[in-house]
Amino acid sequence: MQFAAQFDLFDYLRMRQGLVNRELERAVASAYPERLYDAMRYSLMSGGKRLRPVLCIAACEATGGSAATALPTACALEMLHTATLIHDDLPAMDDDDYRRGRLSNHKVFGEGMALLAGDALLAYSLEFIIDNTRDVPSDRLLRVMRTLIHMVGVHGAVGGQAVDMESEGRDDVDLATLEFIHTHKTGALLEAAVVTGAVLSGADEDLIARMSRFAQDLGLAFQIVDDVLDVTASREQLGKTPNKDQAARKATFPRLLGVEESVRRARDLVERAKTELLPLAGGAAALLSMADYVCARSS
Amino acid sequence: MQFAAQFDLFDYLRMRQGLVNRELERAVASAYPERLYDAMRYSLMSGGKRLRPVLCIAACEATGGSAATALPTACALEMLHTATLIHDDLPAMDDDDYRRGRLSNHKVFGEGMALLAGDALLAYSLEFIIDNTRDVPSDRLLRVMRTLIHMVGVHGAVGGQAVDMESEGRDDVDLATLEFIHTHKTGALLEAAVVTGAVLSGADEDLIARMSRFAQDLGLAFQIVDDVLDVTASREQLGKTPNKDQAARKATFPRLLGVEESVRRARDLVERAKTELLPLAGGAAALLSMADYVCARSS
Repeated sequence: MQFAAQFDLFDYLRMRQGLVNRELERAVASAYPERLYDAMRYSLMSGGKRLRPVLCIAACEATGGSAATALPTACALEMLHTATLIHDDLPAMDDDDYRRGRLSNHKVFGEGMALLAGDALLAYSLEFIIDNTRDVPSDRLLRVMRTLIHMVGVHGAVGGQAVDMESEGRDDVDLATLEFIHTHKTGALLEAAVVTGAVLSGADEDLIARMSRFAQDLGLAFQIVDDVLDVTASREQLGKTPNKDQAARKATFPRLLGVEESVRRARDLVERAKTELLPLAGGAAALLSMADYVCARSS
Repeated sequence: MQFAAQFDLFDYLRMRQGLVNRELERAVASAYPERLYDAMRYSLMSGGKRLRPVLCIAACEATGGSAATALPTACALEMLHTATLIHDDLPAMDDDDYRRGRLSNHKVFGEGMALLAGDALLAYSLEFIIDNTRDVPSDRLLRVMRTLIHMVGVHGAVGGQAVDMESEGRDDVDLATLEFIHTHKTGALLEAAVVTGAVLSGADEDLIARMSRFAQDLGLAFQIVDDVLDVTASREQLGKTPNKDQAARKATFPRLLGVEESVRRARDLVERAKTELLPLAGGAAALLSMADYVCARSS
């Protein structure tokens, strides 16, 4: 599958990231109570890759919708993702002092305010969608909301984090549990990004199902690569503390399968993911390039 | 205003609380990951008064809707309320070891799991509304969702808690700030309960605005009475640690106005609240009785 070769991913990402960053900047303009907004802004505007927002926009565009239609949901995905990161970094959870190359939220604003900033972003993300999405029927918007809520809660990111926490320091964590953790903790929001993009454009059920499978495979590949990078990369490359997983005796793919087999598995998943997009032909160029990019990070 | 005198509030509350408790029991039936569900259930099923759910049902019934229509939103309100309580009790926030006469969530499940249980309840509450509400048009349901999200987030409970935290230990907290804290921290969800009940029944804008003002006055009265009880009641009566506010040097109504003037102000607010319901005549009996009940707690 070479037909994404001509696509300028760098240019595509830069344009979409710019759109998202400008809209996020507007979304969390300072207001009372200032310190809460400061805490929300600090983590939201800390220069993430905006992978989930761009996936959402790309999925919407690939299925015949516009970037403008997807933009509020794209921003909401980044808010939800940031909320989970702020909470995950807290001492009671993963206890990480660094995130995206800067001090974690609670190291700057204190644990209480960090907790509230996460809660606030979680709620605000959904309000932002309702207030800013134009020309999308209410029932379609409800489906978008349901998908996001489902994927961030007990059936998604929060459920994955709970199993992750319970598994820490245990030697009997098997591959099925590890895959559950990652498909929920990381995969769910990536899937939500792609699926909501397709729902917003009015894609049919077959296409939505394809997008969902594409995102599931891509999400798992993404997490495998993350695990591999945790072993092989430096703090500068990661923007966060490396070897955290090993230090915490966490189950990881490299630990269960070895680095080489992990990388091979990620590549297989990405190849399978890409076949789901065949019906979209040239329209899928951005999504295909992004899928390749996920794997390229590991090599 | 005596026309609520014949109304059997005890019977009304018992019936509605029973409805809500049975539905909540069903809503959080155990599933994987069990410990997360256990933590959610522990706080959700700890025997609260279900004030917000009953207010939502009463508002829906008073404006021509049914209890069944309001029930999913009523349950969601209790989930949202419980989520904020779990997070507020954490050591990084109000640091309270007791809630509703039992150990706080984090004292039983640990801080990390308590944090996740709060997040999970926040997300699940909204999913529960979408999945279980019957015969309500999508645009009306979106308005219900927006109201809840707005009232729990930075413009509501979370914003109020942020200002509360910032004000702790300061001597210069004035009455305006104190009212901001309470109208947001406690009042917002009470208002959301009443307003969503009216929206679900299809009430007109004038009636929704009246219900909103009713709930705002009632909510502030409720919090004033809570402050008064914190000074005058025992741990057994409160089900949580008494004199916490005083110990934390928190601004409270009794501290700023004295106990007697605080009680008088709460009564005035309740009387004003009740006048908003005049157009509903007999249909408002439950809401009027509940308003009276709020004040009666303090004497």
